[in-house]
Amino acid sequence: MRTSRLEAFSDGVLAIIITIMVLELAIPEGEQFTDLLGVTGSGLLSYLLSFIYVGIYWNNHHHLFQLTKRVSGPVLWANLHLLFWLSLFPFTTAWMDSSGFARAPVMTYGIVLLAAATAYALLQRVIMASHPENSSLRDAIGRDTKAKVSLALYLGGVAAAWFIGDEPVLPTVLAAACYVAAALLWFLPDKRIERAMREHAAED
Amino acid sequence: MRTSRLEAFSDGVLAIIITIMVLELAIPEGEQFTDLLGVTGSGLLSYLLSFIYVGIYWNNHHHLFQLTKRVSGPVLWANLHLLFWLSLFPFTTAWMDSSGFARAPVMTYGIVLLAAATAYALLQRVIMASHPENSSLRDAIGRDTKAKVSLALYLGGVAAAWFIGDEPVLPTVLAAACYVAAALLWFLPDKRIERAMREHAAED
Amino acid sequence: MRTSRLEAFSDGVLAIIITIMVLELAIPEGEQFTDLLGVTGSGLLSYLLSFIYVGIYWNNHHHLFQLTKRVSGPVLWANLHLLFWLSLFPFTTAWMDSSGFARAPVMTYGIVLLAAATAYALLQRVIMASHPENSSLRDAIGRDTKAKVSLALYLGGVAAAWFIGDEPVLPTVLAAACYVAAALLWFLPDKRIERAMREHAAED
Amino acid sequence: MRTSRLEAFSDGVLAIIITIMVLELAIPEGEQFTDLLGVTGSGLLSYLLSFIYVGIYWNNHHHLFQLTKRVSGPVLWANLHLLFWLSLFPFTTAWMDSSGFARAPVMTYGIVLLAAATAYALLQRVIMASHPENSSLRDAIGRDTKAKVSLALYLGGVAAAWFIGDEPVLPTVLAAACYVAAALLWFLPDKRIERAMREHAAED
Repeated sequence: MRTSRLEAFSDGVLAIIITIMVLELAIPEGEQFTDLLGVTGSGLLSYLLSFIYVGIYWNNHHHLFQLTKRVSGPVLWANLHLLFWLSLFPFTTAWMDSSGFARAPVMTYGIVLLAAATAYALLQRVIMASHPENSSLRDAIGRDTKAKVSLALYLGGVAAAWFIGDEPVLPTVLAAACYVAAALLWFLPDKRIERAMREHAAED
Repeated sequence: MRTSRLEAFSDGVLAIIITIMVLELAIPEGEQFTDLLGVTGSGLLSYLLSFIYVGIYWNNHHHLFQLTKRVSGPVLWANLHLLFWLSLFPFTTAWMDSSGFARAPVMTYGIVLLAAATAYALLQRVIMASHPENSSLRDAIGRDTKAKVSLALYLGGVAAAWFIGDEPVLPTVLAAACYVAAALLWFLPDKRIERAMREHAAED
Repeated sequence: MRTSRLEAFSDGVLAIIITIMVLELAIPEGEQFTDLLGVTGSGLLSYLLSFIYVGIYWNNHHHLFQLTKRVSGPVLWANLHLLFWLSLFPFTTAWMDSSGFARAPVMTYGIVLLAAATAYALLQRVIMASHPENSSLRDAIGRDTKAKVSLALYLGGVAAAWFIGDEPVLPTVLAAACYVAAALLWFLPDKRIERAMREHAAED
Repeated sequence: MRTSRLEAFSDGVLAIIITIMVLELAIPEGEQFTDLLGVTGSGLLSYLLSFIYVGIYWNNHHHLFQLTKRVSGPVLWANLHLLFWLSLFPFTTAWMDSSGFARAPVMTYGIVLLAAATAYALLQRVIMASHPENSSLRDAIGRDTKAKVSLALYLGGVAAAWFIGDEPVLPTVLAAACYVAAALLWFLPDKRIERAMREHAAED
């Protein structure tokens, strides 16, 4: 099976996830610029963070499937598994906002980020297993240090959020810093895959 | 007519159905992990089940149209008929959740599953009728035992839900078991179609 | 410019329109099958009618662009103009339902159907004007009796709805009959275009 | 990397943005035609304006990527940056409507238009930088007088909205006139790109 329809379906799901979060943004009840602060302001910031995360996943998904030649049953399901966790982003973002960044919602936000990252790593494994001959793909994914660091950052963010209690500011800032740092780490598209693609093109 | 635009439109509709169900999830009013149980918890579980069902339909649709060479008017309408029943999943899922798994909503959920399965079987017939020469398609769909078993399971689930009354636990669990069992049955992509495709490729 | 991206964008918009109407369906507050009647029941019926209408437009759009070779600026805007009127279907459907089929909403539903049909006729003209050499397209669209009859039916429905007053049943039924009759008229895909395509294929 | 998947993802996001705004339209509570005026009426007008804006962006995006041969990491992110600002249109449109065209929301509407226009100009730069050899693209984008005039109109609209106070009519009309004028300016697709494409085709 070719990859075109899996890519089209994933594009559709990611396009909807990235867009419907804006529907969850509370329209300010007042008419002043200051009404953009408060609930709406933190809503806009967490919308921006989740938008960037979905954008990162789309970018990496795009790169990954440039090196994927064919699709099998397990790849289809590993991809749906990833989409499931990504589809929970609007839910966890909305809960985090409506609770005013309370302990459990901030932890849940990080746990879903962690689950999505794990699902992405699993998808890479399944694709590699179904392309035993494709050395350029194996080289491109390789040891995947970046993925390991970002998993640690998500765990760090969840752990920091655990301490949100009577004195919420410091742990909230720490958790947010972990989630933002992991996003920054992935902000640039994967050089290894672009390099592998150039080498792959040169081999042909 | 080629199949590409029918596939793109179906991908779009299925991508939206699978994603908008998350919008129906009630954001918890409290800030504790325990607030994820109760209404939200059963909502997450039934969201997961419906997500898997739409995923199964997308997978099978994907496999089926790999063997479909061209599209005629009846195929377009049989496909829209299937999409109509699938588009009711968010509605039946939301009603089942908001009612706390009452008798009528659990039966309705199963009836819509049954209607979607019947619509899928009808779509297969219409495609087979428009490809009289395509023996690999006919071999792949064949007697379709799996479809018959799953129809029986949906009927069983609807029948079990009929007995949800003063003592709701046992019939609810039975109905849910039927719906989950039918999903598990289809979880793996259709070996017959993959086999038929390989043979088809070998014939060319 | 090729037609592929216009088709993909239109598929996306139509897929969303056809699917989001289900989000407007009121989830029944009760737990009985009888709760599916009343507001939910008329909502389901008008959802079905609007689903069929969007399906018809998608089918005809699909047929029309099979014969369209290239896209110019006016075609892009004539297509967006059609999509604008179709995008109002969820709004007019929801207003008709929530008002219990009152005079103004039933008339508005028909007026938007009329506007969409006019926009579709306009799109056909613009495409024909940009393909002066394409005789198979001109033959396929031809005198377009079906379009004229359906415009008359929409006008008839709007006129009947005008008389919804103290005695609402007869005019409501008449208006609904007109809207359903126009849908039935278009239910079958356009034989002329399929014929023209076969002739066109034979010419090549 | 080819441009096809970036185009498909952008089509998906733009199709959703253009369509979900209709979900924000308040269904009239009354049953009279006069209920379409007031909040619903201004909602329909600003829906129309935002629909035209998203349509303009889709048209220009479509034209721009006709001349774009390949996609790099920076192009992916510049495109996501544009989509982010466009995704805020439903939010700013809804706030402007619900506030009855108050000062801050009308200014915010213009500021987001300004940000989207700036993001589009940035995307053009990034594409030009990654196609150093493509003279037809450079000729097509050129000095871009139209973009500069529309930036000035957005600034003018935001400035006019600043004076919405005790006497709101004149500044509101002026701001709306600026936003509508900029839309009219872009209504026609970009002749330069169509011309460059014809020359480009002639060169091949």
